[in-house]
Amino acid sequence: MNSIIYFYGLFFIGSFVYSKPFDKATCGYDSCHPVDPNKLNVHLVPHSHDDVGWLKTVDQYFYGRNISYQRAGVQYIIDSVVHALEEDPKRRFIQVETAFFWQWWKKQDEETRSTVRHLVNSGQLEIIGGAWSMNDEAAVNYQSVIDQFTLGLRTINDTLGECGRPKIGWQIDPFGHTREMASIFAQLGYDGVLFARLDYRDVNERQKGLNTELIWKGNPDLGETSDLFTSLIYRFYDAPATFCWDVLCGDEPIVEDEESPAYNVERRVNQFHDYILKQKVNYKTPNILITMGGDFTYQAAPMYYKNLDKLIKGFKRFKGDTINMIYSTPSCYIKAVNDYARSHNLDFERKTDDFIPYASDQHTYWTGYYTSRPNSKRFERQGNNLLQVTKQLVAFEKTNKKDFNGDITKLKEIMGIMQHHDAITGTEKQHVADDYVRLLTEAFKQAENNIDEIIYDLLQKDFSINKEKDNTKVHLQTCLLSNITHCEASNSKRFSIAVYNPLSRSVSHYVRLPVNSTKFEITGSGGELLDYQVLPSIDTFKYVQGIKPSLYDLVFYAKDLPPFGLKYYHVERLSVNVNKPNLIQPESGKYRLGDAESGFAINPSTGLLNSVTLNGETVPVKQQFMFYRGANGTNENAEKRASGAYIFRPAKDFPNAELIGDKAEVKVYTGDLVDEVHEKINDWVKQIIRIYKEENYIEFDWLVGPIEYRDKLGVEVVSRFITDLNSDNTFYTDTNGRGLIKRVRDYRPTFNYTNEEPVSGNYYPITSRIVLKDKERNLELAVLNDRAQGGSSLHNGELELMVHRRLINDDKFGVAEVLDEKEFGRGVTVRGQHQLVLGTSGKNAAAQQHDIAQRKLLAPWVFVGAASSQDHSLENFEKYFKFEFAGLTRSLPENVQILTLETWEDNSLLLRLEHLFESNEDPKLSEPVTVDLEGILSLYKITSIRETTLAGNQWLEENRRLDWNSKTRHSGRTLINNLPDDLKITLSPQQIRTFIIGVESNTI
Amino acid sequence: MNSIIYFYGLFFIGSFVYSKPFDKATCGYDSCHPVDPNKLNVHLVPHSHDDVGWLKTVDQYFYGRNISYQRAGVQYIIDSVVHALEEDPKRRFIQVETAFFWQWWKKQDEETRSTVRHLVNSGQLEIIGGAWSMNDEAAVNYQSVIDQFTLGLRTINDTLGECGRPKIGWQIDPFGHTREMASIFAQLGYDGVLFARLDYRDVNERQKGLNTELIWKGNPDLGETSDLFTSLIYRFYDAPATFCWDVLCGDEPIVEDEESPAYNVERRVNQFHDYILKQKVNYKTPNILITMGGDFTYQAAPMYYKNLDKLIKGFKRFKGDTINMIYSTPSCYIKAVNDYARSHNLDFERKTDDFIPYASDQHTYWTGYYTSRPNSKRFERQGNNLLQVTKQLVAFEKTNKKDFNGDITKLKEIMGIMQHHDAITGTEKQHVADDYVRLLTEAFKQAENNIDEIIYDLLQKDFSINKEKDNTKVHLQTCLLSNITHCEASNSKRFSIAVYNPLSRSVSHYVRLPVNSTKFEITGSGGELLDYQVLPSIDTFKYVQGIKPSLYDLVFYAKDLPPFGLKYYHVERLSVNVNKPNLIQPESGKYRLGDAESGFAINPSTGLLNSVTLNGETVPVKQQFMFYRGANGTNENAEKRASGAYIFRPAKDFPNAELIGDKAEVKVYTGDLVDEVHEKINDWVKQIIRIYKEENYIEFDWLVGPIEYRDKLGVEVVSRFITDLNSDNTFYTDTNGRGLIKRVRDYRPTFNYTNEEPVSGNYYPITSRIVLKDKERNLELAVLNDRAQGGSSLHNGELELMVHRRLINDDKFGVAEVLDEKEFGRGVTVRGQHQLVLGTSGKNAAAQQHDIAQRKLLAPWVFVGAASSQDHSLENFEKYFKFEFAGLTRSLPENVQILTLETWEDNSLLLRLEHLFESNEDPKLSEPVTVDLEGILSLYKITSIRETTLAGNQWLEENRRLDWNSKTRHSGRTLINNLPDDLKITLSPQQIRTFIIGVESNTI
Repeated sequence: MNSIIYFYGLFFIGSFVYSKPFDKATCGYDSCHPVDPNKLNVHLVPHSHDDVGWLKTVDQYFYGRNISYQRAGVQYIIDSVVHALEEDPKRRFIQVETAFFWQWWKKQDEETRSTVRHLVNSGQLEIIGGAWSMNDEAAVNYQSVIDQFTLGLRTINDTLGECGRPKIGWQIDPFGHTREMASIFAQLGYDGVLFARLDYRDVNERQKGLNTELIWKGNPDLGETSDLFTSLIYRFYDAPATFCWDVLCGDEPIVEDEESPAYNVERRVNQFHDYILKQKVNYKTPNILITMGGDFTYQAAPMYYKNLDKLIKGFKRFKGDTINMIYSTPSCYIKAVNDYARSHNLDFERKTDDFIPYASDQHTYWTGYYTSRPNSKRFERQGNNLLQVTKQLVAFEKTNKKDFNGDITKLKEIMGIMQHHDAITGTEKQHVADDYVRLLTEAFKQAENNIDEIIYDLLQKDFSINKEKDNTKVHLQTCLLSNITHCEASNSKRFSIAVYNPLSRSVSHYVRLPVNSTKFEITGSGGELLDYQVLPSIDTFKYVQGIKPSLYDLVFYAKDLPPFGLKYYHVERLSVNVNKPNLIQPESGKYRLGDAESGFAINPSTGLLNSVTLNGETVPVKQQFMFYRGANGTNENAEKRASGAYIFRPAKDFPNAELIGDKAEVKVYTGDLVDEVHEKINDWVKQIIRIYKEENYIEFDWLVGPIEYRDKLGVEVVSRFITDLNSDNTFYTDTNGRGLIKRVRDYRPTFNYTNEEPVSGNYYPITSRIVLKDKERNLELAVLNDRAQGGSSLHNGELELMVHRRLINDDKFGVAEVLDEKEFGRGVTVRGQHQLVLGTSGKNAAAQQHDIAQRKLLAPWVFVGAASSQDHSLENFEKYFKFEFAGLTRSLPENVQILTLETWEDNSLLLRLEHLFESNEDPKLSEPVTVDLEGILSLYKITSIRETTLAGNQWLEENRRLDWNSKTRHSGRTLINNLPDDLKITLSPQQIRTFIIGVESNTI
Repeated sequence: MNSIIYFYGLFFIGSFVYSKPFDKATCGYDSCHPVDPNKLNVHLVPHSHDDVGWLKTVDQYFYGRNISYQRAGVQYIIDSVVHALEEDPKRRFIQVETAFFWQWWKKQDEETRSTVRHLVNSGQLEIIGGAWSMNDEAAVNYQSVIDQFTLGLRTINDTLGECGRPKIGWQIDPFGHTREMASIFAQLGYDGVLFARLDYRDVNERQKGLNTELIWKGNPDLGETSDLFTSLIYRFYDAPATFCWDVLCGDEPIVEDEESPAYNVERRVNQFHDYILKQKVNYKTPNILITMGGDFTYQAAPMYYKNLDKLIKGFKRFKGDTINMIYSTPSCYIKAVNDYARSHNLDFERKTDDFIPYASDQHTYWTGYYTSRPNSKRFERQGNNLLQVTKQLVAFEKTNKKDFNGDITKLKEIMGIMQHHDAITGTEKQHVADDYVRLLTEAFKQAENNIDEIIYDLLQKDFSINKEKDNTKVHLQTCLLSNITHCEASNSKRFSIAVYNPLSRSVSHYVRLPVNSTKFEITGSGGELLDYQVLPSIDTFKYVQGIKPSLYDLVFYAKDLPPFGLKYYHVERLSVNVNKPNLIQPESGKYRLGDAESGFAINPSTGLLNSVTLNGETVPVKQQFMFYRGANGTNENAEKRASGAYIFRPAKDFPNAELIGDKAEVKVYTGDLVDEVHEKINDWVKQIIRIYKEENYIEFDWLVGPIEYRDKLGVEVVSRFITDLNSDNTFYTDTNGRGLIKRVRDYRPTFNYTNEEPVSGNYYPITSRIVLKDKERNLELAVLNDRAQGGSSLHNGELELMVHRRLINDDKFGVAEVLDEKEFGRGVTVRGQHQLVLGTSGKNAAAQQHDIAQRKLLAPWVFVGAASSQDHSLENFEKYFKFEFAGLTRSLPENVQILTLETWEDNSLLLRLEHLFESNEDPKLSEPVTVDLEGILSLYKITSIRETTLAGNQWLEENRRLDWNSKTRHSGRTLINNLPDDLKITLSPQQIRTFIIGVESNTI
C-alpha cells in the first residue's frame, strides 16, 4: 500500500468557487441564541417552503411568473431574506432547496455573495436539508436521493463553505416517510430530521404519549450509525393561525404604539401564548419549535421579521418570566433538546418501522401518488439510468484530458428536481409535469451531446488523429421512443449499437430495438455474428401522430458486457425478408412457453396466465388486469374525499377491484432467444408475457390506455397476481429500492390501526419489488417493477401493482386539477414491465431479486446510430476501433456495487461502494465483503483514498453527530468505519461507503 | 426701526431634530441622472400613492391591518424602499405624504434616520408634494391647505434638512384642480405640479394640441409669482399595463436568462417601447415621464426595482440608440423639460381658469363629493376654527413661559389628514369617516386640555399664586354639541363664558347657547348686564339617544371682541321663568321681520321666503328645499353610472330638482336681538330664517334629515334661492375660500363643452360663497356657507347649494360602499347655515361678503364652563381676573388678516399676513395696504423679522424658481417681495406674506 497518500489538504472538495470548505466552523451550534433552562424555550423558525415545481414550473417559481396560479417568486424570497437578516443579527432563516439557491446564487455579484457567506458563517442563514430538492420518500430510489444530496451539498460547499453544511433534515411536506430516508440522513452525518405529515392516529397517540420525538433506527443492519433523531412538527409547517405576517397572508400586524387604536401587542402575545401552551404539553423537553412561514412566504421578508421582532419583544415584556422566545433554527432546536436530554437523563422511543403510508384522516390515504403519472415516474428512472451511464463515461473520458462534465449538469440538476415531492409523485399541475418532461428531455440531449466522442475515444485502437477514422464514427444516441416502437437509427439500412453496462459486474442483456424488417446481420467483437429474433411489436401506435411506427422488435443477446464497460455491434439490414416471426397456433396443452426450468403456461380457454415455473419450481399464478372505480367527492370532509393525484380511494359502492377482461385474444411467438404470448385483453389493455431463454424471470410487458371511464367514476388499473402461496396476511415491500419491510395486512406495528379503507390503507409504495413468502413451502415470489407504483397484497397469495390512473375529481390538496393525463386528445397510454421471480427463501430468492432489480435500475444502455455513409462500413470500424471497452479490470463480487463513480475534482473521483444485501437474506451474499480496489479502474491508478460522509461533503473522521444514547452520553460521535489502510474496503450488509479517490491516468 | 435684527443663523427653522436645514444643497437638480439631448429621455418615476385614509383608516394603512379591505401597509413601503434605494444608488423614489413619513420616522433608530438622510442628500429619495396629506382641491379652504403644507414641510425640514425640501407638487389623485391651489404651490416656491385627473374632453384636446404641459396662472392679482408649470401625467398614475412588478400586481417579471423558457427581455422592452411611442407624441420635448407605481405599491420594493433595473438595462441593450431610459423624479423631469424649453426657445400655453369640475366621461361628473358627508365637512371647518384659536392662545401663553404647543399637535395633524382627498371629500368608507371623527374629537379634547389655564393666565390681574384665585377658575370647554342643542355647562345654575376672537380685527358676535330656562343674568366687563333673548331651539333631538335636549337657545351679543382677544361673561340662571320666547301670530302682511334696512318677508300663504331687504335694497327671493333623485346604475359604462360618493348624477328620468314641500308650517319669534321664522317643511326638513338686529345678512339655519328615499332612488337635497336678478347665465364661485371665479352655464373657457349632464356638469365646489350679479342693477347677491358644498346657478337669477345626499348605489370608484350615512339606526341628520348677502357691486358687496366669510371661517370661539362651586361667584372672579384680553394692541385694517400666528421656535413666531381682497372688488379695500407691526402684539416685542416662502420652510430670498418665460430666459427667479426695512409690511391684493418674527416677551 505504498501508493496511497492520504489527503489532509483543506482545499480538496469543492474549491472552485469558495475555498476552505473543510475549515473549522465558527457557525453551527455555537451560533444559536442561548436557551434558558428555567423557562420554556420557544424556538421560532422562519422558513419558506419553496416547491421546485408544483402549481407552477421551477422556472416560474423562481422568477415569480404566472401569478394566476400562485403568487410565488423565489428570487424575491432570497433577495429579501438576505436583506432582512442583514438588518438585524438576531434574526434567523433556513434555506432548504438548493436548486433554487443555486439558481439565485449564479445571478449574484461578489458583494452579495460575500454578504450571504457572512450570514451563513454567523449562523443567521442556515442551510437545512440542502439537497437539490426536498425529495419525496415513497416513489424515489435511494440512488437518486443520494445523488441529489451529493449535488446539493456539493453546491453548498462550493458556494458557502463549511458553515453552509446542513446538519438537519427538513422533510416538512413529503407525504410519508421511509426508513431508508432516515438511514440516508444518518449516513449523511445529519443530527436529526423534522417533518409534519404522519398518520393521524399515529400523531394522536404520539402526542398523548409524549413520543413526538424519537430515535428512528434507519437500518437494522447498520446499528447506531443509521439512528436518526426525529422530531414531529406540531400541527403543520405553517405559522400558528393569525400569525402569518407575510404578503401572502396579511395577518393582523403587531402594534406597540399605545396611541394607536390598533395597539395590540399584549393581546397578540397572549394569543400566541395560548398556542404555545397547547403545543408544550406534547413535548418532553422545555423546548418547542414553531415554524413561522409557509409555502413561498418571505417574498417580502422584512415585513414578516418586523412583526416577529415585535412578538419576541412583546414576549420578553409580558411573558419574560416563564418564556424564552428566540429566533432559532431546526439545528438549534435539536441541539437544545439534546442538551436537555443529556443533562436530564432523558430517553426517547426507538422506532424501527416507517411512516408509510400517510393517512391524514380516516378516508384520506395518500397512496394514489405512489402511481400517479406513471410515464413520468418511468422517465425519471431512465434519467437515473442514463445519469449513471454518463457519469461513468465522463469520468473515464477524463483520461483523454477531455472534460465533458458540463454535459451532464442539466441531467444531474433535473434528476435532483425530479426527486421533489411534487415531481416524481405526479402531484403537480399538468403544465408543470410537461415542463419536467421538457427539462428531462433537454437534459438527455445535453448528456448525449458528446457521447459518441466519448465512446469512440474509449474504443479507439490508437490516439492518432485521422480523418478516415473520424468519418467512421456514427452519431450515437438513445432511442428514447423505442418503448413506443420508434427509432429512426435502428430503421436505417446499416446501424451501429453501443451497449454500455453501468454495473460494476459483468452482465448480459437482451437488446430490443424497433425495426421494420426481419432479416439482419449483427456483428460483434471479433467478427462474431450474433443470433437474433424478430417479433411483432406491441401495438402502441394507434394514436401517435407524426411518428412512424415499427412493425417488429429486433432482439439479440448482448452477452457478457464488461463491468462499467461497453460492447459495440454493427448491424446490416438484409434485403430479403424471410424469417417472419415464428407465430405458433398452439393446440390445447401447448400454451406452455420456456423450458422445464423456467417458463409459464397459459390457460388455453382464457388466454391468461395459469402458472409459472422458475428455478424448477412451478406455482399456479393467475395474472389479470383489474380496476378500481375511484371515488368522486367534493372533499369538504373525510367522507367526501375523492380519489385524486394524491389520494387513492375506491368508490364506496365499488370497494373491490373488478376484472377488466376475463379473456384475452392471444398470439404466441417462440424462438431461440425468447418466447412470447401477446395478449389483447380489450381495446386499451394489452400485454406480452415473455421468457428470455437465458433469464430466470417471467416478464410482463403491458400497455394500458387510454383508459375508458366507467359510470363517471375514475378508473385505477392494477395488475394482480394470484398464487397459491400461503402468505399469512403478510407481504414485503422495498424501502426506496433497498431493504425489504414487512407489511401485515390491516395492521400497523406502532399504533392502533382502524381499517376504514381496506384497499387504500393497505397500499404501499413499491419502488423496486413486492414480495410474497410462503414459509411452509419456503417459497418466495417477487414482482419487480420499472418505476414506482402503489401495490399491496389484499388477500393471501395475491399481489397487485397499480399501473395507471385516470380520475374525475381533484382531491383538493392544492393542485386543483383532475389527474387526467392526455395525449393526442385522448387519455394517455402507459407501457411498463413487471418481472416475476420465484425462488427459495434463504437460498436463491434474494440473490435473484437483487440481480434483476439492479439490472432494471441500471440496465445496460443502448446507444444507436445510423451508419449511413460508406465510411461507416464494418471494415472501416474494425480498422480503427475495438468492439469492447471495460472500465473495470474485473467484476466486483455479486453482493457489491459501485453505486457511484463520478468526476470530483481535476484529479479525483467520487467512488461509492454499496453492499447490496441485508443480513440473513442469503447464506453467502449476506456476509460482509471486502473489495480490493487496487488496479480496479482500467484507465486510472488510484493514488489516494479518503472516506467521506454519504454525500461526499465532509471527511468522515471529521463528522460528529449528537449522541442520543442515554447510556453513553457522548457529546457527539462519529460514524465509525475502519479507515482502509490499503485499498481493500470491507462492507457489511447494507453498508454504503463513499470515498474521494485521487487518480492518475494509466493511459498516457 | 432699531429693534429689528435680521437672522442669518442657519439653525433657526426646525432645528430641533436635524441641524443646518438651510445649508446649501448638494442634492436637488444636480443629482438627476443626465438626459441625452439626442434621444428620447424616458423618466421612470417609482412612486407609491398612499392615501391617508380611504378604504382603511390612516392607522390601518400605516400598519397594514385590515387587509380584507386593502392589502396595504405603509410601514412596509418605506422600510422596503429605503432598503431598495440603499442597494443601488441609481434608483430613485419619491415620498409624498408626510403624515405617513412622520409616523414612520418617529419609530426609526438613529442609524436608519441617517441612512434616509443620506438617500435624501444624494437625491435618491426625493420628497415630492410633502404636505401632511395630498389634499383635495375642491372642498378645502386655503387656510387649511397652507397649514398642512406648513406642518408637512416643517416636519421634512426638521427630519431631513434642506435636501428634503420639495420643489414639485404631486396631485396625482385629487378629483379636479383649482387655481388657488396652483397659486399656493407657486407661493410655496415650487417649480411645478403634476396631476392626472382632468376633464376627458380637455385632456383629449390638450393631447392633440400638444398642450399637455402649460403655465398655469394661479392668481390674476399676483402675476408671475403665482405662475405654475403644470404637467399632465399621461393616462393615470399607475404603471403602464403589464408593467407593475409589485406584490399587488405580479405582472410578468423580466427574465434575462436565455436558458430560461421565460426569457423575455427583448419582447418586454418592445412592449414598453410601444407604450413610450404612444405617449411621446403628446409631449413637446424629448422627455416623457412614466409613473411606475400605484396605490400602496412598493410594500416589497426590491421586487419592483429588480425588474425596473432589468427594464432599463434591456432598453440600453435593445433601444439604446434612440431611447435614454433613466430612473427619475418629477423634479428631474421638469428640470429636463425646462432645460429643453430654454435651449429651444419653446413656450407653453398660459391658462387662467381652473380644472373644475372633473368629468371622467360624458356622464361621470365628480361633483357629488363637493357635498358628500356634510357633517364631516362641517366638523373639519370647526377644526380649523379651533386650531387658529388655540395656535394664537398657545403663542400668547408662551409669554407666561408655558409651552402648550404639544396640546395642539394632534389637531394640527388631523387637520392635515382631513384635507386629504378621501377625507374632507367624503369619499372614504364609513368606518374610515368614523375614525376621522374620532381623531378630530380626540384632537379637540387635547387642544382644550389646558385651555382654561391659558385663558385665566391671560385674564389674570396679577401673577400671584393664590388658592382662592385658583378656585375661582372654572373648567372651560367647547360645547361641541350645541348644534344639536346640547350643552351641559350652559345648563348649569351658573356658568362662565369666554369668547375668543381669532380675527386680527375687532368683531362682535351673537353668542348662542342651548338652555332650558328663560331668565338669566349675564354680566360682562365692568359689571355690565347684557341684554339677551331666549328662543325655542330647532327640533333636532328626536333621534338622539342619551343626550338631554335643551328647549331654548340663549342669545346675547358679545360686542367688540378685541382682535386676537377674548371677553369673559358670567351667567346666572334666575329661577323665575317669565319672559318666554316672544312667539307672534302675525296677521297677513305682518310676516315681515327685521327693519327697513335689513330684513325679510315671508309669503303668508306658503310660509316660505318672499323677499329680502339688505342694505336698503329689496329683492324678491324665494328659497325652497328641493331634491334630485340620484341615478342608480351598475357603472359598467358611462350610461350606467350611478350617483355615488364621488359622482353626482340625477336619474335620467328625473333630470330636474323637485320641490320637497310647497308650504311650511311657520312660527315667528321676534325680539330685541333677533327675529326668527321657524319653518317646518316636512318631517325631515326644517329651517330657521333669522335676522340679527346688528347684522346685514339673512341667516338660513337648516336641519335636513333623515332623508327618506323616493322610488328607490337616491335623494340629493338642495336649498335653492330664486331671485329676479338677471345674471346672464353667469355666476361666481370662490376658489378654496379666496378669490371668485366666473362660471358660465353650459360652458368651459378652454375646451369644447358638451352638455350631457345639464345639472351635474354645471356644479362647482362652493367652499365659501356663491355669487350672482345683475350688471344692469349693479346688484350682487351672495350665499355663504359654513362648509364645502356643491352649488350652481341653473337658471338666471337662481342659486342652489346641495346640503345633503343619501344614495342607493356605489359609483364604483373603489370605495365599494353606498353613501348612506346612518345615526341611531336611521339616516343621518345635517344642520347648517347659509348667509345671504345683498349689496352693490363695486361698493359694499365684496366688503360684506369678505367680512361675513371671515367671521364664519374664523368665528369667535365660545368656551363655556359650569361655575358650580361657591368660589365661582362673580365677586371672586372680579377680584382676580379681568373680563377682557387683547392679543393685538389694535385692529388691523379691514382688508388685512393675520392669517396665521403660531409659535415657531423658542423665541420666534410664524406670522402670516394676507390681503383679503381681489383688485377691483372694492373701491378702497382692493388697494394695496401697509400694516405696521410695530407694537402690534400686546404681549411681545418684535425683535427681528425675516420673510419666508408660504410654508415658512425657506427664506424667501433664497428661493429660486425655474423660469418658464420664453422672453426672460432666466435660469431661475425669486418670488419678488420688497423686504421690509422696518415693521411696515405692504400687501398687494390677494397677497399672502409669511414671516418668522423674533419676539421678546413684554410681560416679564
